[in-house]
Amino acid sequence: MSDFAKKLDQYAEVAVRCGLNIQKGQTLWINAPIHAPELVRLIARKAYEAGAKNVHVEWYDDAVTRLKYDLAPDEAFEEYPAWRVKAMEDLAHMDGAYLWIASSDPELLKGVPAGRIAAASRSSGKALAKWREMMTADKFTWSIIGAPSPEWAARVFPDLDRKAAVEALWDAIFRAARIVGDDPVQGWRRHDAELQRRRDLLNRKRYKKLHYRAPGTNLTVALPDGHIWCGGSSENEKGTVFFANMPTEEVFTSPLKEGTSGTVTSTMPLSYQGNLIENFTLTFENGRVTDFKAEKGYEALKTLLEVDEGARYLGEVALVPHESPISQSGIVYYNTLYDENASCHLALGNAYAFCLENGKTMGMEERKAAGLNTSITHVDFMIGSGELDIDGEKEDGTLEPIFRKGNWAF
Amino acid sequence: MSDFAKKLDQYAEVAVRCGLNIQKGQTLWINAPIHAPELVRLIARKAYEAGAKNVHVEWYDDAVTRLKYDLAPDEAFEEYPAWRVKAMEDLAHMDGAYLWIASSDPELLKGVPAGRIAAASRSSGKALAKWREMMTADKFTWSIIGAPSPEWAARVFPDLDRKAAVEALWDAIFRAARIVGDDPVQGWRRHDAELQRRRDLLNRKRYKKLHYRAPGTNLTVALPDGHIWCGGSSENEKGTVFFANMPTEEVFTSPLKEGTSGTVTSTMPLSYQGNLIENFTLTFENGRVTDFKAEKGYEALKTLLEVDEGARYLGEVALVPHESPISQSGIVYYNTLYDENASCHLALGNAYAFCLENGKTMGMEERKAAGLNTSITHVDFMIGSGELDIDGEKEDGTLEPIFRKGNWAF
Repeated sequence: MSDFAKKLDQYAEVAVRCGLNIQKGQTLWINAPIHAPELVRLIARKAYEAGAKNVHVEWYDDAVTRLKYDLAPDEAFEEYPAWRVKAMEDLAHMDGAYLWIASSDPELLKGVPAGRIAAASRSSGKALAKWREMMTADKFTWSIIGAPSPEWAARVFPDLDRKAAVEALWDAIFRAARIVGDDPVQGWRRHDAELQRRRDLLNRKRYKKLHYRAPGTNLTVALPDGHIWCGGSSENEKGTVFFANMPTEEVFTSPLKEGTSGTVTSTMPLSYQGNLIENFTLTFENGRVTDFKAEKGYEALKTLLEVDEGARYLGEVALVPHESPISQSGIVYYNTLYDENASCHLALGNAYAFCLENGKTMGMEERKAAGLNTSITHVDFMIGSGELDIDGEKEDGTLEPIFRKGNWAF
Repeated sequence: MSDFAKKLDQYAEVAVRCGLNIQKGQTLWINAPIHAPELVRLIARKAYEAGAKNVHVEWYDDAVTRLKYDLAPDEAFEEYPAWRVKAMEDLAHMDGAYLWIASSDPELLKGVPAGRIAAASRSSGKALAKWREMMTADKFTWSIIGAPSPEWAARVFPDLDRKAAVEALWDAIFRAARIVGDDPVQGWRRHDAELQRRRDLLNRKRYKKLHYRAPGTNLTVALPDGHIWCGGSSENEKGTVFFANMPTEEVFTSPLKEGTSGTVTSTMPLSYQGNLIENFTLTFENGRVTDFKAEKGYEALKTLLEVDEGARYLGEVALVPHESPISQSGIVYYNTLYDENASCHLALGNAYAFCLENGKTMGMEERKAAGLNTSITHVDFMIGSGELDIDGEKEDGTLEPIFRKGNWAF
């Protein structure tokens, strides 16, 4: 077996045993790019070997997606197929597992009129709202991993030829997903224990507010009573432990919807629905984005902020040390799955219910009452750097350093 | 543009303009193999250009299919996903168009226990019965075309290397689909007119019975009152003209369910659900298969005959001259879409309602009363050769030659 074949096999193994933690009798739904059949077949095989009853692959092709955005009539973006809503909700209700294999060109939708993208986002957001709610409440097992596409690889490694770029991106993806040594499954267990130690420490602190300081950033983020710092593995309703993201390097919680004020500046490009947004700044008052600017992708940022009212508020605050392996690789992936794990980040949009005490069993109105933001979208953006300091403000108003120069202060 | 690129473009054009005849505002659903993205993208582009509102591609991968048959538990084959039934029925009700791109390895399921295949066939047959009924009644537009897979190509051209075999199969598929000259769309219109001339002639004859004679074959097939010979283009409920199969060389009708007697011997291999059945003989009494044998694939044939009671009766009788272009190519495709258009054939299973006067508006019970077979399956098998004679028996018992030595006698 070549080194690549060995790593691909290990990657599939980690996805099935750690990411999804497939249980006997489960149905697995995989969304996968048509150019990664080897990975998909390995995952399907290992899922069946782990006891899956059925593995359904819903393949996607960037080119077909783009053709629709270029050629379909406007009304095509106002609707979302009912059968697909049924497929996703049925999967959740039957205790299925869901795997997304991210692979798209970060600039897939470059040049597409923003109105079309916004309409598509609204339609899918509304149609899948119930399913997404079940997902963020961890009612079922779900995981996101990555696989290179030639277009994505060319963006990450613009100086390499196509074949070499794809190989380099595979290598970077394997490293980011901690596919090292002979037993990466064991490695993931150790990594999980470390993330849990960090999150438990933060949970004991009960900070009321976080204060961010960096060039272009002076931001205060209040946290709701009963917030829970999460990180590492998740647990679904049946008690199955899974990793929603692979890689995952973050410790994160849900902010108080109306408790953010000040200004924050992005430190990495954001690929939002196939458009890059770069060097952007958001200004918050009482939690709401009241002003924004962007050196590149202003229209895409505007589209994002206008998805719904909740898109103007934060839904996540996440801590990732600047010395994390992904950050230290120096690679900009132009893909949130990876870039968010290289950098402290925030998210606009829906807040995670599981980051609040008893949140998993709360209805929408209860979550709102507890101070959580709700939205049909949830988009991470990166604000970490070697110059970022973060303080935690305790109940009594005293400040403690959490991050200094981008890394954990304790 | 290379000659291949030109032909691929023409093939996509013929599929969209003739096969599907896409109308403004239609949704197109394509089932396609993941290894034929160029063809699929061309079809999607041309469909949008013809006014399609949405093109959805449901990709499939033989390897993932086979993994399920090898590794899933038995109960996985007893169910069929409700979301997919909804997808297909919604498509039909919204006047959508459906395209199947056939590409599978003819021996994909070789060695799979027959019980699993039969269970899967029963489950999908039952779940999709309503949709299939709408399909065979031409309630909506549907079409089947082909594209090579490496495995399929290797079977058709076992002496060529993989790349050459795929090229040779593309070439054979283009020829079979009449992708010749500069205007194949016009060529299809001429071909359609010729098929219509044959079918109109047979419709004027009103034969009561057909008598088949060939080595290993001595068969009488009665036709129901009001039978209609069909061939060439079809017409959906809205009056859109389309070709359900590309290629299509046949003139065909529905037999009287209980009116077949005698023995018939196959003249070409039949790929049934991924297993080859070869040199098989069926004996009929009062329409029902009462005895059968096969030199190869006996179990697969048995599985087919046991799908349901209707699988024991004929549902189609089709006339194709031995001198048809596909037949003259001498290529055995191991795929019904092609092989049925190289040879006179019969089908076991469901009869076409549209081959009966007023059949399209008949309910299931009315069709049965009119003498049509009903089944959840419909499988063609080839009986044509250069040695086949067919006579038509008129109302008054006189016989007229229809085929002599495999070709039209008039």
